[in-house]
Amino acid sequence: MTDSKTQPRVLIFDTTLRDGEQSPGATMTHEEKLEIAGLLDEMGVDIIEAGFPIASEGDFTAVSEIAKRAKNSTICGLARANPKDIDRCWEAVRHAKSPRIHTFIGTSPLHRAIPNLDMDQMAERIHDTVTHARNLCDNVQWSPMDATRTEHDYLCRVVEIAIKAGATTINIPDTVGYTAPRESADLIRMLLERVPGADQVIFATHCHNDLGMATANSLAAVEAGARQIECTINGLGERAGNTALEEVVMALRVRNDIMPYQTGIDTTKIMGLSRRVATVSGFAVQFNKAIVGKNAFAHESGIHQDGMLKNRETFEVMRPEDVGLSGTSLPLGKHSGRAALRAKLKDLGVDLADNQLNDVFVRFKALADRKKEVYDDDLIALVSDEQTNDAYEFLQLKKLRVVCGTDGPQEAEMVLTVDGVDHKIDATGDGPVDAAFMCVKMIYPHKARLQLYQVNAVTEGTDAQATVSVRLEEDGRIVTGSSADTDTIVASTRAYINALNRLIIRRQKTAPGEDVKTVSYHGE
Amino acid sequence: MTDSKTQPRVLIFDTTLRDGEQSPGATMTHEEKLEIAGLLDEMGVDIIEAGFPIASEGDFTAVSEIAKRAKNSTICGLARANPKDIDRCWEAVRHAKSPRIHTFIGTSPLHRAIPNLDMDQMAERIHDTVTHARNLCDNVQWSPMDATRTEHDYLCRVVEIAIKAGATTINIPDTVGYTAPRESADLIRMLLERVPGADQVIFATHCHNDLGMATANSLAAVEAGARQIECTINGLGERAGNTALEEVVMALRVRNDIMPYQTGIDTTKIMGLSRRVATVSGFAVQFNKAIVGKNAFAHESGIHQDGMLKNRETFEVMRPEDVGLSGTSLPLGKHSGRAALRAKLKDLGVDLADNQLNDVFVRFKALADRKKEVYDDDLIALVSDEQTNDAYEFLQLKKLRVVCGTDGPQEAEMVLTVDGVDHKIDATGDGPVDAAFMCVKMIYPHKARLQLYQVNAVTEGTDAQATVSVRLEEDGRIVTGSSADTDTIVASTRAYINALNRLIIRRQKTAPGEDVKTVSYHGE
Repeated sequence: MTDSKTQPRVLIFDTTLRDGEQSPGATMTHEEKLEIAGLLDEMGVDIIEAGFPIASEGDFTAVSEIAKRAKNSTICGLARANPKDIDRCWEAVRHAKSPRIHTFIGTSPLHRAIPNLDMDQMAERIHDTVTHARNLCDNVQWSPMDATRTEHDYLCRVVEIAIKAGATTINIPDTVGYTAPRESADLIRMLLERVPGADQVIFATHCHNDLGMATANSLAAVEAGARQIECTINGLGERAGNTALEEVVMALRVRNDIMPYQTGIDTTKIMGLSRRVATVSGFAVQFNKAIVGKNAFAHESGIHQDGMLKNRETFEVMRPEDVGLSGTSLPLGKHSGRAALRAKLKDLGVDLADNQLNDVFVRFKALADRKKEVYDDDLIALVSDEQTNDAYEFLQLKKLRVVCGTDGPQEAEMVLTVDGVDHKIDATGDGPVDAAFMCVKMIYPHKARLQLYQVNAVTEGTDAQATVSVRLEEDGRIVTGSSADTDTIVASTRAYINALNRLIIRRQKTAPGEDVKTVSYHGE
Repeated sequence: MTDSKTQPRVLIFDTTLRDGEQSPGATMTHEEKLEIAGLLDEMGVDIIEAGFPIASEGDFTAVSEIAKRAKNSTICGLARANPKDIDRCWEAVRHAKSPRIHTFIGTSPLHRAIPNLDMDQMAERIHDTVTHARNLCDNVQWSPMDATRTEHDYLCRVVEIAIKAGATTINIPDTVGYTAPRESADLIRMLLERVPGADQVIFATHCHNDLGMATANSLAAVEAGARQIECTINGLGERAGNTALEEVVMALRVRNDIMPYQTGIDTTKIMGLSRRVATVSGFAVQFNKAIVGKNAFAHESGIHQDGMLKNRETFEVMRPEDVGLSGTSLPLGKHSGRAALRAKLKDLGVDLADNQLNDVFVRFKALADRKKEVYDDDLIALVSDEQTNDAYEFLQLKKLRVVCGTDGPQEAEMVLTVDGVDHKIDATGDGPVDAAFMCVKMIYPHKARLQLYQVNAVTEGTDAQATVSVRLEEDGRIVTGSSADTDTIVASTRAYINALNRLIIRRQKTAPGEDVKTVSYHGE
């Protein structure tokens, strides 16, 4: 292994907040976006694609705020190939120490047909829009969407135009997750060989995982000369998602012998970010997910022990500590103090303000009184609940009592505070959750449709805290609420109310459908 | 695209029941193994690795029974490099129309150190054991475990020995999920070039997904000359799992233009098998999993519609129907008859015996009375519950009433029938599920430890059926129970009782620890 300091640097471009947030149902709140951006920045991500500023007021505000707060990362916004998009993008990212405009257009025959431009017209459009972007910002990324299905000659021609117009990064997206590693490498190699000026810019790879090859495709592109990988935490993204940040980063580290490239990522922050993104997006990570799955470092008891005990390397190519997995249960008990809790949370990658810590401390004490063992995951659930329930509480659950079981209808009795006034009601339903939700609907009638109801038991044992995610849709507005409690029914009800509170805020801010990304765009 | 009939055939070797079942917690019952084997056989899997016969009585019986029932698939069993293992394996697989013995030994320096054999001693062992296997069966597969970390010269030497001793398939396992596509191809190419007799056998690839590259590695091996891919449904397997069957099969189909190989898989059976394996293993599939994830074919509403409406190919490289995803909600209502139900189930890949169909029909009617819309997924959950609750019911839930909510301890009142006698009790707990489980423990005391408690809401809406999986461990025996109900608490309790019933059967069959795979082996 050569000294990693002298190895070529591969830039990590994270698009969890743009392409990832575009996954059906993964919509994040403003506060969640700021938090994730802060964690990505701390982790050493080179470029954060923070959103698509023209898509909505919400996206614009989030990108602007992230740009203002960024410490080390370059902040990038997405824009279609027109001056209005590009101007709006610049207005948002310009607050960053290091801003970038990312503009794109679909160049494959299928995509050229949509705006009905012929090859020459599209080439002109590319020249004009990249020039426009470069006049605003000296860091411009350009992407020919669906590049892997674009004719090679035409691809070379438009990449050359973009470079001449001032693009500093050329991203080659495999929009439909169609390519294979050999092709991915060949395409980058061809562009580097054929396009005049290619040696003056950075080539990026942006892969989707529809055929399960995004990681291998990204790494093959790097071996062929790409120096920026576009990826998301947990591989979040439309359909089967994007390249997973944790996979490419760990592969470059573990296989540095054959892929001698360095990244600036602090890999010990991977697990913390993975958990946080899973919580705010409501997209749980499967047990057998590479790197961040619950089983990624687990060996079947009894079977593997022999080899594992004799030599750990026999069956492990990386250590759990490398990705920030401590695996130990929390040594804090009910007699532990605030300082110990703060230190433990810091270990878990969670940094709270003092007032938040106080709230978490109170709830930690209550939990420690009830649970024999408080695991790391319990603590993470507790903090997540604290962090996600920061919306204005127009609706507040004061009391809930549910009777359920094998016989007869399930009954719920509820006191719900609506804008400060208590309302009491009881209702029956099909199942205890249905009954509890029915109470809410009767006290606060609304027409939001339940899109997702998901329960995760975060630790072992029936006294574990269940984390519940609820996603609601109303007039095109999509909101997610979540909550954690040892009582699944209570957690479900709180998550539902949390989502409704967010919807109420959203209604006040926007007209129906206004903040929905109805622009005719879908990401690379 | 060339005519697929004239393309070289790549054999699909499924090891869901051996390597997949070895994932911590994925242990399946005898009945579940038979069912999955039947579905794999129908789907067109060429070789089914049904288990590791010497590991336990349970494994032996399962492999024997699967061998007896197999229609088209070759049935394979695993054996370490000793005559006792091989004999036991043969006793189990010999019942098949087409049996195979799969024997292996770790050939990398780290693995050679475990049995403390030098290169010559190991070479002799390989010669002797492959010869022994071939004397019993004319279809012998041999694997040098950890092949990707074995010295190339030594690997060539032992592969040659195995071929001369009569091995008909040589499998090259990437045991620790360490390799990259280029290396994977180079290794197969080197063996084909350097090993005398290599053209007389089939080379297989067996990849693990620790770095997220199993699919690309498998396909690269095929392009280099491998003609058998070892894989599992949903990529089930130890740590980050094995190559996912659905990914390699669909990649070969979608990218037949650059990978002109055919398989014998009926891809429309993929979704049905994926769902069934997720249920019996308790390993849920993440939304953004390639091919079989809930979002794999989903496009964010509003954003993608423009392109999708104009041309479906714009953003889709395969059709949901290709993998057996109908996506339509069930047109059956409460007035639908038995024939309609049977036809619908058949569409969903579920074929039930008449008595099972009757039971499902009764429960379908009850559900249709309570739910406005009965989705395909509801029906699958209903059938799953029917199929998994076939264990002898020593314990039966007669009545459950739970009171829970925000205030005070959660209370449960239960009537549980133990071996035909009713017992009534009440208990409090931390959360409603804890209280209900406490009742069971008080009526039927035991020391099984709860390893997993997992809830999946299978369809949208709070009146959806929740599928609950419960995994228990006692003296090294691991059992999983599951159940579905619109009441999460009832489903949880039934799943718990279901697991206990299975544990009781297991206790009667085996001494503590006997059926635990404590042999010093871990799979490729």
